[in-house]
Amino acid sequence: MNFIPERMAPLKARRMGIDTHHEPTLYLRAESPVCRSEGFESLSRILASSDGDKSIVASLNIITSDLIADDEVGFSEAAWRRLGIEPDAPVWLSHPKPVQSLSHVRSKVYGHTLNQDQFREIISDIIAGQYAEVHLAAFITACGDEKLSDEEITALTQAMVESGSRIDWQIPVVLDKHCVGGLPGNRTTPIVISILTACGITIPKTSSRAITSPAGTADTMETLTEVSLSLEEMRQVVNDVGGCLAWGGSVKLSPADDLIIQVERALDIDSEGQLIASVLSKKIAAGATHVLIDIPVGPTAKVRSQQAAEKLATSFRTVAEQLNLKCRVLFTDGSQPVGRGIGPALEARDILAVLQNHPDAPSDLRERAAVIAGEMLEMVQEIGKGEGVKIAMKMLESGAAWNKFMAICAAQGGMKTPPIAPYRFALISKHPGYVSNIDNRKLSKVAKLAGAPADPAAGVEMHVHLQQEVTAGTALLTIHAESVGELNYAVDYLNEHQDIVTLSHKSL
Amino acid sequence: MNFIPERMAPLKARRMGIDTHHEPTLYLRAESPVCRSEGFESLSRILASSDGDKSIVASLNIITSDLIADDEVGFSEAAWRRLGIEPDAPVWLSHPKPVQSLSHVRSKVYGHTLNQDQFREIISDIIAGQYAEVHLAAFITACGDEKLSDEEITALTQAMVESGSRIDWQIPVVLDKHCVGGLPGNRTTPIVISILTACGITIPKTSSRAITSPAGTADTMETLTEVSLSLEEMRQVVNDVGGCLAWGGSVKLSPADDLIIQVERALDIDSEGQLIASVLSKKIAAGATHVLIDIPVGPTAKVRSQQAAEKLATSFRTVAEQLNLKCRVLFTDGSQPVGRGIGPALEARDILAVLQNHPDAPSDLRERAAVIAGEMLEMVQEIGKGEGVKIAMKMLESGAAWNKFMAICAAQGGMKTPPIAPYRFALISKHPGYVSNIDNRKLSKVAKLAGAPADPAAGVEMHVHLQQEVTAGTALLTIHAESVGELNYAVDYLNEHQDIVTLSHKSL
Repeated sequence: MNFIPERMAPLKARRMGIDTHHEPTLYLRAESPVCRSEGFESLSRILASSDGDKSIVASLNIITSDLIADDEVGFSEAAWRRLGIEPDAPVWLSHPKPVQSLSHVRSKVYGHTLNQDQFREIISDIIAGQYAEVHLAAFITACGDEKLSDEEITALTQAMVESGSRIDWQIPVVLDKHCVGGLPGNRTTPIVISILTACGITIPKTSSRAITSPAGTADTMETLTEVSLSLEEMRQVVNDVGGCLAWGGSVKLSPADDLIIQVERALDIDSEGQLIASVLSKKIAAGATHVLIDIPVGPTAKVRSQQAAEKLATSFRTVAEQLNLKCRVLFTDGSQPVGRGIGPALEARDILAVLQNHPDAPSDLRERAAVIAGEMLEMVQEIGKGEGVKIAMKMLESGAAWNKFMAICAAQGGMKTPPIAPYRFALISKHPGYVSNIDNRKLSKVAKLAGAPADPAAGVEMHVHLQQEVTAGTALLTIHAESVGELNYAVDYLNEHQDIVTLSHKSL
Repeated sequence: MNFIPERMAPLKARRMGIDTHHEPTLYLRAESPVCRSEGFESLSRILASSDGDKSIVASLNIITSDLIADDEVGFSEAAWRRLGIEPDAPVWLSHPKPVQSLSHVRSKVYGHTLNQDQFREIISDIIAGQYAEVHLAAFITACGDEKLSDEEITALTQAMVESGSRIDWQIPVVLDKHCVGGLPGNRTTPIVISILTACGITIPKTSSRAITSPAGTADTMETLTEVSLSLEEMRQVVNDVGGCLAWGGSVKLSPADDLIIQVERALDIDSEGQLIASVLSKKIAAGATHVLIDIPVGPTAKVRSQQAAEKLATSFRTVAEQLNLKCRVLFTDGSQPVGRGIGPALEARDILAVLQNHPDAPSDLRERAAVIAGEMLEMVQEIGKGEGVKIAMKMLESGAAWNKFMAICAAQGGMKTPPIAPYRFALISKHPGYVSNIDNRKLSKVAKLAGAPADPAAGVEMHVHLQQEVTAGTALLTIHAESVGELNYAVDYLNEHQDIVTLSHKSL
């Protein structure tokens, strides 16, 4: 009864022009002979192989109309890109092997500890496109909260570093920084890098896009210059001007991270273990030898208590040490937004004001950037405690940082003017009072509902800060949006949450 | 600067004929004015409203080809069904409100305890289609392992009961049973129900389809008769013949469960809390007053140790008591498959053999069914300990159970003959020996890879049992498949896992 079947006849590839985002999807007619012979049905995972040696795994949607012919297989844009074939090319469909590493994910759900090899297999399968979005969601959730030990975070970080390219800058010290988000408008990086390069330090900075926040440094920098640089372009910029401000994703550092982040964004879950692995894997892959971690602490910031901050800091230091990375952690005030803008273009405007020594420049952003740059200087130079921030301030005041920033933007492809949003709504105070509370989380939500970071001009402009006295009729904040629908959406949310900016009758 | 927009012009509804399974999906041209004005992009969640009062939430795919026109919105089959409109009907698109209950899911990820109201909101949003598949995956994973307390399981069960219809049979005692899967081929329910109805007990049985196993009772019964009965049809059958064997899903009992199960299947995760809530919510909604839980225990069964079985039993009893359900738990041998067939039609054949008193009928299946029926009799009748199983055996031997089974099938729409698979592969022993181990999990996997339960004739036929002596050249098992691709897939897996049936040289 042993049975050896012949290879199926191929189908013709058809690009459907359907954008399913990262998830590769194939389309087959219900009447297709392949559906019957292979027993495929909607949401089946399918292995599609080209004439060459390439293959992809994708999810199936069954077509019950005449969108395609029986002998065709339709490709979503992600599937088409991944397989890289020509229209009408022959494609063979079959069942993919079971994804073995999913048993490790289940094992993690059941509370077991995973080892280096298991994380390697998971990350390798994620990059190979073997995980559907529900599998990524399960992996993220299983690693959520404090479910990864420091050893597991180290193993996950290592696996993520190994999964992509790794830059060797061929210089002994490569400084880097990261802010553990959660504080709207806290966009110090472009200022810090300008200060450090002005001090003659070589600093090849790669940044990420937003995960659950209204803007990441890469989103903000993209409103000012080109950030999608190849590794070669980055090297050239760093050689020319001593530093860069590029998007990390475009140079394929820690590629698994980008796929994980996409689902984290949909879930609005950003777990501690994944956070550390994501941050440190990108730093190590980007060639960093020293990294400063900025953790803003405040009741509505991402890290809410000093205790939680110290726990997180300890994990960061432990994992970094295991991976031979010098790491310093700085706790900063996380009680209110930094600067005025929240959202890519609005934050870019604040950065320009600080660098240009504009009299109205937000002083909190300026001071924060100087403190961080100062700490980083002290990590790599033989200067006394407290000297760093003074040097940093001088670089800002003298215009040296601004000159460096312009040089970096020019080297990355030219400086742009950040866009301005066409639709706005101002929140007006109904009575006089003192600003007694600002809810960072809800404020971020307003900025995201308004369209940030996908719409670069969208976001929130803050007009007040904590303890400020206001009269009735004062504009507290302005929502900026690129579309009417999104403006309404953000305004609805604002109206439903009156506690985003709280006014009290007395000064605190 | 206050801004009140006009309602957008509607788009024309277009049924795409794309089956995305349960996940509703909408399709819009990249050039559609709605995309620009509302800031929609691929995977955005969208609220689509019809001229009437109906609306659905769906995920968006952006069309970059000419599959649809700029003023059209395409609907997947699930989206089309849910909104229930005519072709070219006007549809308005907007941003859905943020799904508040997702914050409860995140709270669970972070290890917090959820209360009754929070579970109610989650289940209500799931039923309303507010959760994308990644959200369901996160909820399932967050509740995985032992992350739900008995109080939380009770609250989840209650929320699931309230979410659907609930049957009142208007009789004082409604018996029910459930087997906590994990044991291939363990299909006692149709036999047990036949025995009990033959004893004059009214037993309106609803069963589910497989979650992670190769067959559920509903899948197996579907190869023998109609199982998709409306509530009215079920009542009629029970009135006519005293019992039924229907699929629970068709009467909308605990509808959230069906959506959760779909994603559990993709993840192959079936958590303890979700398991108890799923089982007990369906039993309560189906009107049960007494329920017997059968827990097979064995090293490769779903429950692997006596300790785990007792923990699960305690949770079942605690939750059932909170919900006023009488519950008895029975531990059974879970060391090897039951009967010969694994898969809907193959299991149906075993059931027929037992009921027909066929000399070759699998005696293990027969005895198991009698023990379970006996325990259930003792729950509701004034008979001595051990009397139940004797009565049950008599019902089988006399043919009374077989007569009842035929009557039930006739009442449900007529009896069918289970299908036979066209493609087969036999695993032959290479040397003589004794069967020392059978891996239930891997055996289930083989049956699923062969196509079960979606292909009813697919599965595995076992020819040996534990400790049986075999000669070289003995057929140990036969894989049955409805397609060549699936047969190959199962055979590949079999070849890669030589330990599915282990032969040792000595008797145990």
